[in-house]
Amino acid sequence: MTDRIQEFLAERRRAGRDNGPCLVVDLDVIRENYRGFARALPDTRVFYAVKANPAPEVLSLLASLGSCFDTASVPEIEQTLAAGATPDRISFGNTIKKERDVARAYELGIRLFAVDCVEEVEKIARVAPGSKVFCRILCDGSGAEWPLSRKFGCAPEMATGVLEHAHRLGLQAYGVSFHVGSQQTDPRKWDGALKSAADIFRDLAERGITLQMVNLGGGFPTKYLKNVPAVKQYGNAIFRALSKHFGNRLPETIIEPGRGMVGNAGMIEAEVVLISKKSEAEGELRWVYLDIGKFNGLAETIDEMIRYPIRTEADGAPTTPCVIAGPSCDSVDVLYEKKPYELPISLEIGTKVLIEGTGAYTTTYSAVGFNGFPPLETFII
Amino acid sequence: MTDRIQEFLAERRRAGRDNGPCLVVDLDVIRENYRGFARALPDTRVFYAVKANPAPEVLSLLASLGSCFDTASVPEIEQTLAAGATPDRISFGNTIKKERDVARAYELGIRLFAVDCVEEVEKIARVAPGSKVFCRILCDGSGAEWPLSRKFGCAPEMATGVLEHAHRLGLQAYGVSFHVGSQQTDPRKWDGALKSAADIFRDLAERGITLQMVNLGGGFPTKYLKNVPAVKQYGNAIFRALSKHFGNRLPETIIEPGRGMVGNAGMIEAEVVLISKKSEAEGELRWVYLDIGKFNGLAETIDEMIRYPIRTEADGAPTTPCVIAGPSCDSVDVLYEKKPYELPISLEIGTKVLIEGTGAYTTTYSAVGFNGFPPLETFII
Repeated sequence: MTDRIQEFLAERRRAGRDNGPCLVVDLDVIRENYRGFARALPDTRVFYAVKANPAPEVLSLLASLGSCFDTASVPEIEQTLAAGATPDRISFGNTIKKERDVARAYELGIRLFAVDCVEEVEKIARVAPGSKVFCRILCDGSGAEWPLSRKFGCAPEMATGVLEHAHRLGLQAYGVSFHVGSQQTDPRKWDGALKSAADIFRDLAERGITLQMVNLGGGFPTKYLKNVPAVKQYGNAIFRALSKHFGNRLPETIIEPGRGMVGNAGMIEAEVVLISKKSEAEGELRWVYLDIGKFNGLAETIDEMIRYPIRTEADGAPTTPCVIAGPSCDSVDVLYEKKPYELPISLEIGTKVLIEGTGAYTTTYSAVGFNGFPPLETFII
Repeated sequence: MTDRIQEFLAERRRAGRDNGPCLVVDLDVIRENYRGFARALPDTRVFYAVKANPAPEVLSLLASLGSCFDTASVPEIEQTLAAGATPDRISFGNTIKKERDVARAYELGIRLFAVDCVEEVEKIARVAPGSKVFCRILCDGSGAEWPLSRKFGCAPEMATGVLEHAHRLGLQAYGVSFHVGSQQTDPRKWDGALKSAADIFRDLAERGITLQMVNLGGGFPTKYLKNVPAVKQYGNAIFRALSKHFGNRLPETIIEPGRGMVGNAGMIEAEVVLISKKSEAEGELRWVYLDIGKFNGLAETIDEMIRYPIRTEADGAPTTPCVIAGPSCDSVDVLYEKKPYELPISLEIGTKVLIEGTGAYTTTYSAVGFNGFPPLETFII
């Protein structure tokens, strides 16, 4: 909680506008985070993962600080250009692209594309000739609070063929990317993926193709309930792993922080709508229903993956275990049940709670009008 | 697939407007479904679950056919009134309501409210005096493809106290509701819940309080890949269970179909963005990426719960197992992986597929702008 957010919320209450849940994002925190990454990884370019929070104010700030951008779609490319980034600072980082979207991106000046198969390489060769491509490889996501599925990337042994195919089609086989899993709390996890990347560099060098870049992906955590290592520790561990696997011929590197850049800059204020019991048999277990849930901002509570810190005015007072659920008429809209959440006994219907670490992956995940509830209101300050 | 939907999609293609996924809903199918419910349960009032698809055209059609409406929020109440329903045909069916929303609903003329605890009864007594309330009870959801969580309802033994409390506070203790689970394919599942409801009627009668209504909830299935029993079979099974537990003093009854009313009226047209392999080790398994996924319409594929029929032009040709995923840069946006989906070998990048049974729980679940992708485009014809 920053002073600026606190003042903003107090003013909103005084004005009587605190009528529904809202997210407040403090740009000062994002500025600090950007500088933290730049200091921890001084030779690495930062490509902010726009999907984490594409608010124009966030993009403009980062553009002005010199950040590059990892985008998932043509609309994200357009938003990023509108915020002042030049096309040479934008990567089309989604491995799943319609050919006409690749063409449109090329028209907009984009020359850097992610791929993970020959089929995608062929699209790019047809409509974005001469562009740089990097191939995403699958890697072990253990140690991440949110290990990724196998949706993106190919087996490392396939990547050589994919990049060679790109080279043959006149594209620039530029490098390798991977993602060690979202909210990765173990800085050593980059090591294994960097070993695979170095192997691919060598294999291609033997075929006369010189790769230049390793995209270290995202995965940098934000603090939720548990402490996470400082970004400096990630920088050190990554530098050690790079030196170990690439020796003194270090490649260009980029990172794609999303959560790590904006997560701790945001705070949601929500309201307790109902506190009740389901049955006498459940003892002291209470159900606490908030006016925010899985469908209007907190989608990342799916499978109880992300456990947000929830602050109340009564913090410090005795607690009881609570199931926490959202306001919708949808049975899956339960935030924490498998592992109930301790909240103060004195918590009352109608009081406000603060949900920390909600600057990333909340606003645009919000449903358009699920159950009639409006999308999450957002203020960037 | 109806002829009207087929013609609409053909026309859209001819006009070159088939640029992204879209849902087409055929009102004729909804009209038939409404009549089917009315015939199968002639003494039961239909309260359409607005959340399933709140398109104004859908609400207007149902209002004109005489339907009542189950709403989840004040915006849904306002949408329903705007579509021509009178307040006496609207239930505020969400058990989780802000007191100021109850007050606003009362102002709009709503006099029928769901509750599942004394705390909610007290809100209603304060700001919606004299209204009718029904208490939702928990019941066994076995047999449902989507069993509900314990989010809504209280243990049947608590319901008596909740309704007695309502009576004491000057509200009309009106009845009992339950939900046997979404996409419930066993018509006999209403029996157990109706036994609990009859017990509550008796307990309250002994205390001098006469309940009048049983809300049989939703759960009526729509056809996805497997056939489901006809609505007539539900009508028969429910009538038998009502007679068994209530004898010749049958209560008023209402049903709240959502999926069963609009599910089969809608069809999504989507496009194959990419087909690839992850590794040689996976044999013939392919990954098929569509331009629609969990975040722009198909949220109900969560945990692979709803398995939509996917039609392609090559249906009937030899198939291979496929993992199906959405277009976003989000690792959880995978539709079917645990149990891969058989799709024709000849399926190609760029071809269209049709996803059936998508009239319910698609449009408003769609995210506002996740990964820059727009919400699901919808046409009501």
